[in-house]
Amino acid sequence: MRFTSEQHLDGAVLEREFTLGEIPGMLWTPGSASASAPAPLILLSPPPLGLRKTYPRLVARARHSAAYGFATAAIELPGRGDRPRWPAAEQALADLRQAVEAGEPVSDEIIDALILPLVDKAVPEWQAALDALLSLPEIGGPVGYSGGVISIGTRLAVVEPRISAAVLFAGSFVPRAMFEEARQVTIPLHVLLQWDDEGNDRQAALDLFDAFASKEKTLHANMGGHTGVPQFAGDAAAQFFTRHLK
Amino acid sequence: MRFTSEQHLDGAVLEREFTLGEIPGMLWTPGSASASAPAPLILLSPPPLGLRKTYPRLVARARHSAAYGFATAAIELPGRGDRPRWPAAEQALADLRQAVEAGEPVSDEIIDALILPLVDKAVPEWQAALDALLSLPEIGGPVGYSGGVISIGTRLAVVEPRISAAVLFAGSFVPRAMFEEARQVTIPLHVLLQWDDEGNDRQAALDLFDAFASKEKTLHANMGGHTGVPQFAGDAAAQFFTRHLK
Repeated sequence: MRFTSEQHLDGAVLEREFTLGEIPGMLWTPGSASASAPAPLILLSPPPLGLRKTYPRLVARARHSAAYGFATAAIELPGRGDRPRWPAAEQALADLRQAVEAGEPVSDEIIDALILPLVDKAVPEWQAALDALLSLPEIGGPVGYSGGVISIGTRLAVVEPRISAAVLFAGSFVPRAMFEEARQVTIPLHVLLQWDDEGNDRQAALDLFDAFASKEKTLHANMGGHTGVPQFAGDAAAQFFTRHLK
Repeated sequence: MRFTSEQHLDGAVLEREFTLGEIPGMLWTPGSASASAPAPLILLSPPPLGLRKTYPRLVARARHSAAYGFATAAIELPGRGDRPRWPAAEQALADLRQAVEAGEPVSDEIIDALILPLVDKAVPEWQAALDALLSLPEIGGPVGYSGGVISIGTRLAVVEPRISAAVLFAGSFVPRAMFEEARQVTIPLHVLLQWDDEGNDRQAALDLFDAFASKEKTLHANMGGHTGVPQFAGDAAAQFFTRHLK
């Protein structure tokens, strides 16, 4: 892990860009990093549009989390931003667009081709990022996950014991196979669903929520489209992490 | 409205019993009533078991609300507690028990007979209670509704303009006719659903949530049975009222 730039945001948050091998990432720590006690970490999975395009949303989440005393970090997903594409993913994306434009249902084959390789590639990268981040003196445990592509969060919750609690955003297609993995998730979950999310299958989101085996799981459904998560939903998510990471 | 008893709970809440005509009720105000500024009011609709049997749950909600600066009041529902039963309701309840014990689905006829007359009778009583409560100097506006039988809250949200926001508990049967009324509800809503509520039809609850026309509506689904609403769900409901009643 190599830091490539840093800036202070209003003196309240230290923002640092880093690279982890070929993967670009960002780390936000509350206050001035040198002065603070180690902060619990939230992995902030970016939406699939990529770090740069979603930076305003990410930095808002980072500032909000810092106000609650959390460090946050994000890495670029495989095939997003400037990271190399792979042909099967490009094909799946083209097939998805074609189906949506034709008003056809998105087939299980397209969803599998779009999501499963992304999960397979992304999860070990997040684990490597976790190794690096937890070695920093300004980062303490425990670790939460918040984001992004819900299948990545689901897989991480199953395979990564260092993640203690997760906020999942039910806003992406879910391969059938992920429902089986969901049944193995037992950590506390806080699931956000935008009720009228035009690009999301509400019933699949409800089924996935039902499948998680966690004893504490909460679904927060709000109005507004995919990007319209209200401010108070962010507060509720921060309170969830405060209950479980502090 | 006639007060019949009062007691201080830990000095933090003044609890008063009252009667409104034949209807028994309870009022909880934060701090010592004489000293405080008028508090916004939350109507605390009791579960259908009746005021006395659900007193521990009600007083816990009242104390919790008082900590956020809210006054709360509850009145006995028609046909509950010591209030006179009416034969059709008794018959509907017997039919319901028979269907549940036989493992049969509860028919629309039973649900209508059980709920619709209750709504018709209860709503004007809550409005009369509101008239009386808002005439007290220790009670100010605005008014929230929190409870109980979700069809009563739905009807009140449609017909009673003094109610500014409502926390509804999706834990009772919903007559078909109420879905039409739900489409006329426009105030901010916070709907609680116990995901594994053994006595509740989850799909009907989700359909009802979908039907509300409110621009701000949030569904909070949690684990645990009918009476297992977690403490943090109560905090979230109090924060909803704080956003809308203060």
